[in-house]
Amino acid sequence: MSNTALIELITREVLAELKERRGKTASAAKRVPVAVSARHVHLAQREIDILFGPGYQLTKRNDLYQPGEFAANEVVTLVGPKLRPLTNVRVLGPVRDRTQVEISRTDAIFLGIPAPVRRSGDLAGSAPITLVGPKGSVTLPEGAIIANRHIHMSPVEAEKWGLKDNDEVTVRTVNSERPTIFGGVQVRVSPKFKLVMHIDTDDANAAGLQCNDEVEIR
Amino acid sequence: MSNTALIELITREVLAELKERRGKTASAAKRVPVAVSARHVHLAQREIDILFGPGYQLTKRNDLYQPGEFAANEVVTLVGPKLRPLTNVRVLGPVRDRTQVEISRTDAIFLGIPAPVRRSGDLAGSAPITLVGPKGSVTLPEGAIIANRHIHMSPVEAEKWGLKDNDEVTVRTVNSERPTIFGGVQVRVSPKFKLVMHIDTDDANAAGLQCNDEVEIR
Repeated sequence: MSNTALIELITREVLAELKERRGKTASAAKRVPVAVSARHVHLAQREIDILFGPGYQLTKRNDLYQPGEFAANEVVTLVGPKLRPLTNVRVLGPVRDRTQVEISRTDAIFLGIPAPVRRSGDLAGSAPITLVGPKGSVTLPEGAIIANRHIHMSPVEAEKWGLKDNDEVTVRTVNSERPTIFGGVQVRVSPKFKLVMHIDTDDANAAGLQCNDEVEIR
Repeated sequence: MSNTALIELITREVLAELKERRGKTASAAKRVPVAVSARHVHLAQREIDILFGPGYQLTKRNDLYQPGEFAANEVVTLVGPKLRPLTNVRVLGPVRDRTQVEISRTDAIFLGIPAPVRRSGDLAGSAPITLVGPKGSVTLPEGAIIANRHIHMSPVEAEKWGLKDNDEVTVRTVNSERPTIFGGVQVRVSPKFKLVMHIDTDDANAAGLQCNDEVEIR
């Protein structure tokens, strides 16, 4: 065998091996199922009292994927300065310390409020919003946000993938009609979390994603 | 000067030089302004006759960015099987050979039609849609699409950036609230085109982009 032929043979073998290794890496990819979050509201007891009556308690409609979280039977109407209503906006339980309204940018434009992209709970300086319930209404000076992109995971996945709470990652769609890469995705780690990426309807519809579609952390 | 100190000095100089070169590359980046396309309709004369009356001619409201294209004063209402209306949907001129309805996935879900992501003009097997005008209505068996992401450019930019008509590129946001990379972006080259990327309201709102924001071809 000539040197040239030998080199060619070795090159071919090495390339084949590399290709196979890449294949194995791909199959061990950091895949995450998607949950699309429609607009919703978390209520504090103060606002529940106003909207549904003093001492009212939320009633459970169905459990959500994250343990302890549930969709309530109760809904509210949201109104902004354009005076157009978003009706039947679902209330999620359990009760929180502060009322938080989570909408998409499409909703924010419809309502006419400058809702910022924020992490859950980071409400200082967020947008004003009016909530209407069957027993009353309340206009909050702040509380409406566009939820940031985030992934819930347990410490098991975090450990396996070398991630920690509050890391920021980039996520790509796997088989979507419009291939999209989402930046600035917050990692949220807790023993009570099950693995899922939360995106809003704008992100989902931009990429053509539906609930349970998979995305991949890059 | 010790060898260690010398190496450190050289390293610092090289890094500074690299940083500056990277800066120069960035300033020569393939930047493209964005135009956000709201839902709209292109009409054939056959549908104009039905919706606005026989022989009716569209009237110009304002010119669009691409020479010859204009927004008409005329609007229609769109309805799908959910029987919910999208009102005041703008008609764009000039008249086309076939009627084409361009909506976002958010709109498609609202209407209840399975509109596919398509290039302009590729209507075979696209979604059915009902258009209502002041003089009549028409239900088309196909014609509603979600427009693909695309960039209009002249042969001058195409040449400069090594691109040709129908190439597919990837585009990233530059300064958006939610960093996003759009895949599958069609390049459309014509001497009559001015440089602009067309995205729909889902893509725009997902990334937090507005008209005239800039994106970058990677």
